[in-house]
Amino acid sequence: MSRRDTREVLLMGPGPSNCDPRVLRAMSEPTLGHLDPGFLAIMTETMDLLRSVFQTSNQLTLAMSGTGSAGMETSVVNMLEPGDRAIVCVHGVFGERLADAAARCGAEVTVVEAPRGEPVDPSKVRETLDRVKGAKLLGIVHAETSTGVLQPMADIVEMCKAHGMLVLVDAVTSLGGVPVDVDRSGFDFVFSGTQKCLSCPPGLSPITLNENALKVLNSRKTGVRSWYLDLTMIQRYWGHERFYHHTAPVNMIYALHEALSIIEEEGVKERFKRHAANSAALAAGLEAMGLKLLVASGYRLPSLTTVIIPEGIDDVPVRKRLLADYSIEIGGGLGALKGKIWRVGLMGHTSRRRNVILFLSALGTILRSMGFKADTAAALAAAGEIGS
Amino acid sequence: MSRRDTREVLLMGPGPSNCDPRVLRAMSEPTLGHLDPGFLAIMTETMDLLRSVFQTSNQLTLAMSGTGSAGMETSVVNMLEPGDRAIVCVHGVFGERLADAAARCGAEVTVVEAPRGEPVDPSKVRETLDRVKGAKLLGIVHAETSTGVLQPMADIVEMCKAHGMLVLVDAVTSLGGVPVDVDRSGFDFVFSGTQKCLSCPPGLSPITLNENALKVLNSRKTGVRSWYLDLTMIQRYWGHERFYHHTAPVNMIYALHEALSIIEEEGVKERFKRHAANSAALAAGLEAMGLKLLVASGYRLPSLTTVIIPEGIDDVPVRKRLLADYSIEIGGGLGALKGKIWRVGLMGHTSRRRNVILFLSALGTILRSMGFKADTAAALAAAGEIGS
Repeated sequence: MSRRDTREVLLMGPGPSNCDPRVLRAMSEPTLGHLDPGFLAIMTETMDLLRSVFQTSNQLTLAMSGTGSAGMETSVVNMLEPGDRAIVCVHGVFGERLADAAARCGAEVTVVEAPRGEPVDPSKVRETLDRVKGAKLLGIVHAETSTGVLQPMADIVEMCKAHGMLVLVDAVTSLGGVPVDVDRSGFDFVFSGTQKCLSCPPGLSPITLNENALKVLNSRKTGVRSWYLDLTMIQRYWGHERFYHHTAPVNMIYALHEALSIIEEEGVKERFKRHAANSAALAAGLEAMGLKLLVASGYRLPSLTTVIIPEGIDDVPVRKRLLADYSIEIGGGLGALKGKIWRVGLMGHTSRRRNVILFLSALGTILRSMGFKADTAAALAAAGEIGS
Repeated sequence: MSRRDTREVLLMGPGPSNCDPRVLRAMSEPTLGHLDPGFLAIMTETMDLLRSVFQTSNQLTLAMSGTGSAGMETSVVNMLEPGDRAIVCVHGVFGERLADAAARCGAEVTVVEAPRGEPVDPSKVRETLDRVKGAKLLGIVHAETSTGVLQPMADIVEMCKAHGMLVLVDAVTSLGGVPVDVDRSGFDFVFSGTQKCLSCPPGLSPITLNENALKVLNSRKTGVRSWYLDLTMIQRYWGHERFYHHTAPVNMIYALHEALSIIEEEGVKERFKRHAANSAALAAGLEAMGLKLLVASGYRLPSLTTVIIPEGIDDVPVRKRLLADYSIEIGGGLGALKGKIWRVGLMGHTSRRRNVILFLSALGTILRSMGFKADTAAALAAAGEIGS
């Protein structure tokens, strides 16, 4: 059997991001039993640390034993019952998935669409809320990883509250890099992933739900369709009872605990500032180089920047050379945007001034060699004045 | 934030087992992107290594991104549709769960029960197969972690084949410690977990399915109810297309790759022999000490031994002292067996002669101090002649 080729790559794609070496070391600490008192104490601390990054006091705040997509499924499978009505805002691939997952729960799903690269228009949401009577919840992606759009939420949340609907939020690519601010934002159910702005390897999905969501959970008329993701049981394992449900991914929880401790040391506000500054530097650099961004200023996601691939340049050869010659990974487009954009992540530990400069230099060099007149000097000058 | 209290504990409970330090080191290698060519090569090798430990040539052999319970749900949610009939053999808690999970898929589930501590009687299965017409599959636990029973499978598989039914097998506590021998046994869908006899941290669920199961999957009339566990999509990510589904738990896959490489180096047959020898030593030692085992000789699971707690001895204080004074974890009983048995695991890396001797010595000392006349000398003599 050959050895694993696990060289160090600068992970500037749509996630996973690079982990702090402390997180990798934490993951390799000896495995404890899932009911060991020492491990239960780590679970409790992890819940506290998650509350702090979610900016919530929700008691039921924990990490599901699966990736972000498992968190997505957890939200709909626990909140929806067959025949329920749900409205899902779709401004990219992850909104499409949420609508798909909600429909699999037997719900009648109405979709509110936005062009890819733009946020969902609150007036279209209002119109749909007025038309579709008795919808139980609205699902929406806060940070659309397929387009790089940060969705403004306040108006939409207000409308949902006026209609007595739950607000269910995909914060996979925002949590830890962009304020999610669960309690003040009025989000009822939020799910995320560990491998984006938390800079922990993929494998866990932090979730949080408030009293409104708990009431919906505890007054279901039918059982939760999933055994593995059934929060009526899982809350008894993470809660005071410590009632065995499944064997928690012990070492992954160590990693998350360490990643969240690092966030606590930095402070969430400092961390948000850092993400904002470095993505502004990257955007300024890319534009000074002569490239165009997909998303209009004001809606850009600080953790993920989407660049339009210039005319005459092919997607894959550029990404292959970035990886082969510079050990830098960036992402291609998904769905309708395949071959049309690059997705450049600056998430968590990866969001550093040195990475912005390195990436701009490497991209400029490659593009020039392919005939695109990238102004690398201008890019570096523009970026250098902003990053942190 | 306090440091994690991750001291080294000898994990002789029902899982997780101890990991070889090589596995823990593998997990802390740098995270690669989930579509990085280096990582895709690791996925491909992991599939090959899994085939070898499952003893199968099934193309669709992979690790689901969740714990063993996720593998259980994967099996039923992909194989069953609403209205299907399923027969589930229940001889412990994990059979109960399988029946529960199958019912959540909308299937009509008929249960064949066995007393806890005994295997399911093939004649009762025959009777049920004759009575319940048109059942699509039979689900059965090969290694019942709640009782320590190893279920004989040949007769039951033969009956199912005669009825044209799929055989779906829970091999969570057998894979890597006891022959599962998927192809020769005629199992159609098998799921397992990483934290038992594979000695990898919890978090992944190896599964394998043959052509019969694939045919059922690909001819479904309704969509798979779970988005996260939908094998019609997941097979495209693990297969040649490498079509993105979700972000694989990259570092967990490194750990599994290393754990499976260790198994390949040892050889599966040598590994099965080692498990058999050490559990025989443990059983001989416990009986020589004056204790009784729950399961009759012939049906004992080599990876997990269940001991009846003697009259006058309380469950919890003994386990607390084992953990506090000797850093040894064993498990208590589940469900109806709570307080009545101890579950002592010798799985994977933990299945070593030195651990048998250490555990017998510690247990003997504790029991004597509580008034039970444990004959530790006899136990050590009996065990010492067998272990490997």
